[in-house]
Amino acid sequence: MPSNDLLLTFNAGSSTVKIGIFAMEGAKARRIGKGVIDFRAKPLSLGLSRGPQTFDMPLKAEVTEDLHDVIDETFARLADHFDMAASRAAGHRVVHGGDRFTKAIALDAASIGAIDALTPLAPLHQPQALRFVRALAHLKPHLVQTASFDTAFHATQDDLVRRLAIPRSLHDEGIKRYGFHGLSYKFIAGELTRKAPQAAKAVVAHLGSGASLCALEGGISRDCSMGFSTLDGIPMATRPGWLDPGVILYLAGERKQPLGEIEDLLYRRSGLLGVSGISADTRDLLKDGRPEARQAIDLLTLRIAGEIGRMAATLGGLDAVVFTAGIGENQPGIRAGVAKHLAWLGLSIDERANTANDFTISTGQSRMTAHVIATDEEQVIADEALSLLAAG
Amino acid sequence: MPSNDLLLTFNAGSSTVKIGIFAMEGAKARRIGKGVIDFRAKPLSLGLSRGPQTFDMPLKAEVTEDLHDVIDETFARLADHFDMAASRAAGHRVVHGGDRFTKAIALDAASIGAIDALTPLAPLHQPQALRFVRALAHLKPHLVQTASFDTAFHATQDDLVRRLAIPRSLHDEGIKRYGFHGLSYKFIAGELTRKAPQAAKAVVAHLGSGASLCALEGGISRDCSMGFSTLDGIPMATRPGWLDPGVILYLAGERKQPLGEIEDLLYRRSGLLGVSGISADTRDLLKDGRPEARQAIDLLTLRIAGEIGRMAATLGGLDAVVFTAGIGENQPGIRAGVAKHLAWLGLSIDERANTANDFTISTGQSRMTAHVIATDEEQVIADEALSLLAAG
Repeated sequence: MPSNDLLLTFNAGSSTVKIGIFAMEGAKARRIGKGVIDFRAKPLSLGLSRGPQTFDMPLKAEVTEDLHDVIDETFARLADHFDMAASRAAGHRVVHGGDRFTKAIALDAASIGAIDALTPLAPLHQPQALRFVRALAHLKPHLVQTASFDTAFHATQDDLVRRLAIPRSLHDEGIKRYGFHGLSYKFIAGELTRKAPQAAKAVVAHLGSGASLCALEGGISRDCSMGFSTLDGIPMATRPGWLDPGVILYLAGERKQPLGEIEDLLYRRSGLLGVSGISADTRDLLKDGRPEARQAIDLLTLRIAGEIGRMAATLGGLDAVVFTAGIGENQPGIRAGVAKHLAWLGLSIDERANTANDFTISTGQSRMTAHVIATDEEQVIADEALSLLAAG
Repeated sequence: MPSNDLLLTFNAGSSTVKIGIFAMEGAKARRIGKGVIDFRAKPLSLGLSRGPQTFDMPLKAEVTEDLHDVIDETFARLADHFDMAASRAAGHRVVHGGDRFTKAIALDAASIGAIDALTPLAPLHQPQALRFVRALAHLKPHLVQTASFDTAFHATQDDLVRRLAIPRSLHDEGIKRYGFHGLSYKFIAGELTRKAPQAAKAVVAHLGSGASLCALEGGISRDCSMGFSTLDGIPMATRPGWLDPGVILYLAGERKQPLGEIEDLLYRRSGLLGVSGISADTRDLLKDGRPEARQAIDLLTLRIAGEIGRMAATLGGLDAVVFTAGIGENQPGIRAGVAKHLAWLGLSIDERANTANDFTISTGQSRMTAHVIATDEEQVIADEALSLLAAG
């Protein structure tokens, strides 16, 4: 088997890191395997897959701030299945690029510092990627490292769409709607342009445990429901989305709740979990017979549809709706619920196609189309890293 | 001239109180005059009108917490033009009725206490009406007093629409989307049903210095952009409307801004004033040539259109848009700006009719209609007070 150079991708979330293993084949990065470390498991668990083969193994390493032991052991385990000596580069998903990073970059000490300086804008997400960047710089100094930013895809948005109705001095200081999940939207925009080029004005619903919507016009981002922070937009597993600002003033002012408690409430106890009081997982809620579970699902689909309506005004029309990410790709019930609220726009869903998770789930008579597309953030990270390597 | 019994209405805002003088004619309250006290003026100023006659006069009284001197002098001045000895009742606009007051009520010590108990839900607005209620109870004990609630008209909304994606215990404790400007929407719903009965699904834009939108279905409220507090929804003169909750966490957490400063920012320094840095008044901004002024107007119309799109999803369609209140009734430029963003829904505006502030401003070819209707909150307060008097 001829060995290609390898390119690794790191997609660090709050409780897991997803690792992509790609073969560098000329101008193309072809995925040959993946891994995921679950930091919630004790001992840590590493899941690996290579083609149809999957391996689950515990890791002996303890999680330290610098992650050195975890990464050493992970690379050793990866080496059982992949030619890790051929690894040339590591591409990272970084949540926040601020106004400065509007495309992927090669990482060095200066740019790592600049990314770190954006941590106040994404205090819960930004540090996660940086830990891996710094650990790899120390342990694997031969790897070229790159960063792909979740915010960058949205740099095409109009200033007006990014603006909150607050003093312009605060806007100028960076309090604006950046948009997130950009790597996913970039992938979907590419797929949509290829497979459904007639869908010029589309809203993409990236529905994972974090969730947002993006308005695309000709594959370009025009709006995103997740704005300044990862709290805004539609309800998520444990985050509320759109929330009257008066709620926070009330909790902090009238109820004297400490800021840390409010932060915990909004990041970890709201959303589907808060509304249902049962689970943060739509799979559980769809199976559960209790009215509270139904209510959480109904609120989710109503709010997604409402946000699609808002974005249609941004786009000045709507040709297609696209569902992606864990929930969007796999849960026909959620898609059907959203579509029901969009019937007035002429959307009608083919039940069989929807149940089968087909690419097109709208009927032939539907005035707009609806699609299901599997997203692949790691492919975008790998492609962007490869472009940077090629550019030297 | 035969003298009818008189009914007074009090609509207390943050810097003015509007007084309505109505003749009680059987089951009808007919407006015969109006007054407004401007609390920003020094000395206080009282403006009166009776038919075509208007009078402006300074008041000698100083503003005290109990307002006794101001009310005594105002009644004395009103008596120069109206038969104040015939006054029988005073109806008040009260901003918040919570879950308890879903229709107008006659006021007594117990209900005044219950309204006061809702002050934490509307700390800046609720006390204003209560000051007048208490002063009149003391000074004019013969007057029957009633309260009409801004939230009450929205009691018809579905639980799901009122729900924020926060823990259900907080919802059960009253942290939910109540809706405001209900007296105005009740008036508009009546007018719309009478003058354009075919407009079953309508969004009404109440655009004053406080502003919101209401989704009506057959004259019934289905949604309101202003929810738990008077901050949410569309940008206003100095309030931001929809704001990513992360902004408040950022200001309080990363920037260590005291809560009082954030409250001041959101209630008094945001909205059109904040975005333009020039003025909170759309009239100034429409005349001003600077790009910052244009940007504030453009953000306002984009966000109104976006909210109309969201509400169309709540309603499952849209037959009409209605503009009302100071800006909505008198500013063709704002209406045209909103309509431009709704062209994709088939709305087209007749420029001449729009400039003339006609009742119907959409063209005959338009797939949906657009209307301008002058609102009259005091008429609703008077009608509700009269119904309560008639009921005994």
